[in-house]
Amino acid sequence: MSNSNKATVQVIKVGGKIVEDPTALMQLLNQFKKVPGYKVLVHGGGRSATKIAAQMGVETKMVDGRRITDEAMLQVVTMVYGGLVNKGIVSKLQSVGVNAMGITGADMNLIQAHKRPVQDVDYGFVGDIDGVDVSVLSPLLAQGVVPVIAPLTHDGQGTMLNTNADTIASEVAKALAADYQVQLVYCFELPGVMHDPEDDSTVIAEINADSFKQLVTDEIVAGGMIPKLENALKAVEAGVHKVRITKANDLGDAEKGTYIV
Amino acid sequence: MSNSNKATVQVIKVGGKIVEDPTALMQLLNQFKKVPGYKVLVHGGGRSATKIAAQMGVETKMVDGRRITDEAMLQVVTMVYGGLVNKGIVSKLQSVGVNAMGITGADMNLIQAHKRPVQDVDYGFVGDIDGVDVSVLSPLLAQGVVPVIAPLTHDGQGTMLNTNADTIASEVAKALAADYQVQLVYCFELPGVMHDPEDDSTVIAEINADSFKQLVTDEIVAGGMIPKLENALKAVEAGVHKVRITKANDLGDAEKGTYIV
Repeated sequence: MSNSNKATVQVIKVGGKIVEDPTALMQLLNQFKKVPGYKVLVHGGGRSATKIAAQMGVETKMVDGRRITDEAMLQVVTMVYGGLVNKGIVSKLQSVGVNAMGITGADMNLIQAHKRPVQDVDYGFVGDIDGVDVSVLSPLLAQGVVPVIAPLTHDGQGTMLNTNADTIASEVAKALAADYQVQLVYCFELPGVMHDPEDDSTVIAEINADSFKQLVTDEIVAGGMIPKLENALKAVEAGVHKVRITKANDLGDAEKGTYIV
Repeated sequence: MSNSNKATVQVIKVGGKIVEDPTALMQLLNQFKKVPGYKVLVHGGGRSATKIAAQMGVETKMVDGRRITDEAMLQVVTMVYGGLVNKGIVSKLQSVGVNAMGITGADMNLIQAHKRPVQDVDYGFVGDIDGVDVSVLSPLLAQGVVPVIAPLTHDGQGTMLNTNADTIASEVAKALAADYQVQLVYCFELPGVMHDPEDDSTVIAEINADSFKQLVTDEIVAGGMIPKLENALKAVEAGVHKVRITKANDLGDAEKGTYIV
């Protein structure tokens, strides 16, 4: 089937900074409501996990910005991501008329994963994704349901696993690409990739594999933005139609942000 | 449609004592797996909520055995029921080959409720049920999915509400009765209603409205069992085919327990 005959799905990833601030969250959800066509929301929640862990006397350990998920922390992230953050978003989406349904990788076996093997670092109960079962999402989308995915997977042996929300978003987007024309959207604190990070008017509208190389050579794209764009280009190679990086507040305006094609 | 032409659904309520003990939970889930036909699991989780609340420094207040759900406790029950307990059950059901999906009243707007008005006691964020949308469950059941319902509802205005699991089980059973032949099963610490509570061989196989009155007159049924059976008889009046009270370990054996008809 050519892309043009496929129904469109937007897979929208929103990080913790937004979903954990009640005002920012309501602004986001009102933008999200405006997104046309089928849509899936993938959320983080690391700040809430850290806060609740501290309240429970569970120490947060990070290595290179990644959470070490021991047994006590697995309990915290299962509660916080699957319960507190997910149901907060679902109930608020319902209040603005979006028929949301919260889901983790364990529910209907949506995302199969395995515990990351210990190499230099023992990340604990962290899941590396083996597969996404799109047949779970298609009937929901067809019924007008909006899946809201928490950053949790499972190992099929009865254990939940903590999994990076950016990774879940890109794996879900790639899996959906077999049946849909998929746009993967990363909500970001800036309006997109910019020539001058101080000047909102310098957002780069479109980046492809060639222009990406040039932007790196010219040192316009640097630091953490390089792996982000590399991952976006990989998603496009894997069949995702477009990846968009945009400010959460611009989510409802398709003209805004940077498109990776 | 006559009952005999309808597909059967069993709505099975399991309390906290079982779902919060890993060994008892796995025994239950292996029994649950054997239950034939469509099935829905409704779980509690009060003991875990009390434990996590204590760990977080949130005080548990009870009035007549009912939890007072202030804002801090609402956060706890949303995390614990919707996250920790629900995803624990879902991942373990997946591990025994049951295609479970966790759901609260907010997800797909399954259960609409309102905050209980303050009368003698302010129960806080406790939901009284207004309606159950069966159209949400039917396609899932038809796909072979087993809904696992946490004791949480929502008010449609963005707020989650704490709701008694027994009540959710009976309201879901009554709503399903329009389309299915429904059996509502309460898992219990005893093998059923007994003539002699010390003697397991005295389980009463069947109770109806008339025999219930006689059992009360004869003081065979007393105390907390009276409202339990009254609620069961009401469910039957409201269209539920049968209510069964049984030991969790006997769940897979339809010969066991007391049937209210």
